[in-house]
Amino acid sequence: MARATAKQQRAATTKDARVFPVIMAGGSGTRFWPLSRVARPKQFLPLATGRPLIVETLARLKGVAPPRQTFVVCGALHAPLVRKALPAVPKPNVLVEPQARNTAPAIALATAAVAHLDPRGVLVVLPSDQHVADVAAFQASVAEAVELARAGHIVTLGIHPTRPETGYGYIQVGEPLSGTARRVSRFAEKPDRPTAEQYLVSGEYLWNAGLFVFRADVMLEAFKHHMPALAAALEPIRAAWGTRRAERALARHFPDMPATSIDYGIAEKASNIAVVPSRCGWSDVGSFNALPEVRPTDESGNVAVGKDVFLIDAAGCVVVAKDRPIAVVGMKDVVVVDAGDAMLVLPKERSQDVRKVVEALKAKKRLSLL
Amino acid sequence: MARATAKQQRAATTKDARVFPVIMAGGSGTRFWPLSRVARPKQFLPLATGRPLIVETLARLKGVAPPRQTFVVCGALHAPLVRKALPAVPKPNVLVEPQARNTAPAIALATAAVAHLDPRGVLVVLPSDQHVADVAAFQASVAEAVELARAGHIVTLGIHPTRPETGYGYIQVGEPLSGTARRVSRFAEKPDRPTAEQYLVSGEYLWNAGLFVFRADVMLEAFKHHMPALAAALEPIRAAWGTRRAERALARHFPDMPATSIDYGIAEKASNIAVVPSRCGWSDVGSFNALPEVRPTDESGNVAVGKDVFLIDAAGCVVVAKDRPIAVVGMKDVVVVDAGDAMLVLPKERSQDVRKVVEALKAKKRLSLL
Repeated sequence: MARATAKQQRAATTKDARVFPVIMAGGSGTRFWPLSRVARPKQFLPLATGRPLIVETLARLKGVAPPRQTFVVCGALHAPLVRKALPAVPKPNVLVEPQARNTAPAIALATAAVAHLDPRGVLVVLPSDQHVADVAAFQASVAEAVELARAGHIVTLGIHPTRPETGYGYIQVGEPLSGTARRVSRFAEKPDRPTAEQYLVSGEYLWNAGLFVFRADVMLEAFKHHMPALAAALEPIRAAWGTRRAERALARHFPDMPATSIDYGIAEKASNIAVVPSRCGWSDVGSFNALPEVRPTDESGNVAVGKDVFLIDAAGCVVVAKDRPIAVVGMKDVVVVDAGDAMLVLPKERSQDVRKVVEALKAKKRLSLL
Repeated sequence: MARATAKQQRAATTKDARVFPVIMAGGSGTRFWPLSRVARPKQFLPLATGRPLIVETLARLKGVAPPRQTFVVCGALHAPLVRKALPAVPKPNVLVEPQARNTAPAIALATAAVAHLDPRGVLVVLPSDQHVADVAAFQASVAEAVELARAGHIVTLGIHPTRPETGYGYIQVGEPLSGTARRVSRFAEKPDRPTAEQYLVSGEYLWNAGLFVFRADVMLEAFKHHMPALAAALEPIRAAWGTRRAERALARHFPDMPATSIDYGIAEKASNIAVVPSRCGWSDVGSFNALPEVRPTDESGNVAVGKDVFLIDAAGCVVVAKDRPIAVVGMKDVVVVDAGDAMLVLPKERSQDVRKVVEALKAKKRLSLL
């Protein structure tokens, strides 16, 4: 009986407002070199678990919406990887951007695709390269966001900060809305350390995780209002969607969209923005330094990935082995990575400097290593 | 005219007392893991130059004696490697110890082999795994040692110390003998740091480099006098040398020789010991920590071996790459080694702790990695 009710409820929810997850897989970061490469960016790496981040992202949506209602936006280079990693997502749902133009055009494309199926469909837009430890809490937050979106809000998830992180953008919460949701007072850029500490202590700031939930028609309206140039370029794409002319329209008009983030283009400007605070063990897995947040550590705080890592008198290290053993002796807080065809060693606190290697390789035109 | 004289001199020297270099290649150290393995010990690695240490050792003897008069003592496992590395050395000159029993039995074997060819032949016994920067100075010291040996001395080369090294044995010099040579006052064990500093300041101590020069008949006499058990076991080997019974005699009697070092068994006891002090840029290449002594360093004191080492903000590092690139960012005084099938990272000053890895691999029975 209870079971039947749950089923009925699920059916009812689906009918009320079909939910369409949109996984944003256009990223091409360099912070995980040598694991990440131009042809194999972060979202395709098994950084947090044994499965690629993008696979975990889809798995995390189980119960939110079925894979057949899920879209992925990515570049042409990565579309084959997406199709291989996510075979349950229908091929036409893999939306290929003609070029990378930041998040607003990517979301516009997905919004057009969803609007074609269901003008009042609710999009759950989320990055493909994050980690969530508490999936139940995440899904509860998403469910709350979906309800608010249904009512016409553009909703973002805000993560309760656990440290004075300077690498994230923040959301200052405004007045209560309904449930745990709040209006958004403002979006704040990445702060310096003292500001981040102030944010943490104030209890008024949440991390901006880049998750947005909204109705297709609401976002199309927002584009018209706040990003008219984008809306104008989107219009012929939307009109051609589902016809033979779609690909040509996309190739022709997508490059006309301004390369703006959805945060800057819409979220910071729209008045109907809401935030659902969440404690879901979220991490953006921003660099090797973040692996101890998302991976099991040993009693000395080491993260060892791979079966043949020998740690002797080592503490706080991040060691990623591939097909050959790695022995690390007497080291503290160091990152050691073997990608099979290239290796990296650097202090954990300098994980951001991985880009210096990528720059050096670019300067030397070592394309096969990029 | 001058040329003719030099030729004549060489011929005369050769006639006076034929010189027989003996390269000791029985070592099986673990301090260069993962480069060194049971089946590929240090002497076969190109640690100081692009050529294996043992190849450099033979090359260093050019002009001292021809390869056809050169012997190598090694274990059965390494004999094929020796023959491959030193094709100029006649196969019968590769003396295979039935088992590793320290240096006195190995030298006894070589002495028997030389005595068979020339009872008054002069042996120049030297380790296969050292580096000498100034070959001319080395050869001058050896020439002086050969002269003394001819006169009946057992001669060792003593290296002028350049730092208070605690990893070497020392030789205290005694009264002057002839030329630069001195009698030996005593052989001293590896000292602690204050003692090593005292040795350095005193000017009376030289490093014991493990090089010995002596006449075959003089050493056979010394064995009889100071190591009668060894001499007794050597006698049937010597009697069978050059006959069909040689191999059987070796297999049967070699294990009876005491596993003693030539230093302890003879050098510390004999009265006719002399030392020739030398400044020849000698290094025993004892660990990865020693590579900056023997390899070119960059302006930040890094040693990079291999074509694809990317050093960014790195200082005092020792990086050995194999077939794949290694990037080292922001590290100081660290050793990073890729052997192709295994990798090692440790602080340079803990280079001795490489053995801990080898012990761990032994404990885990990872024989393929030993």
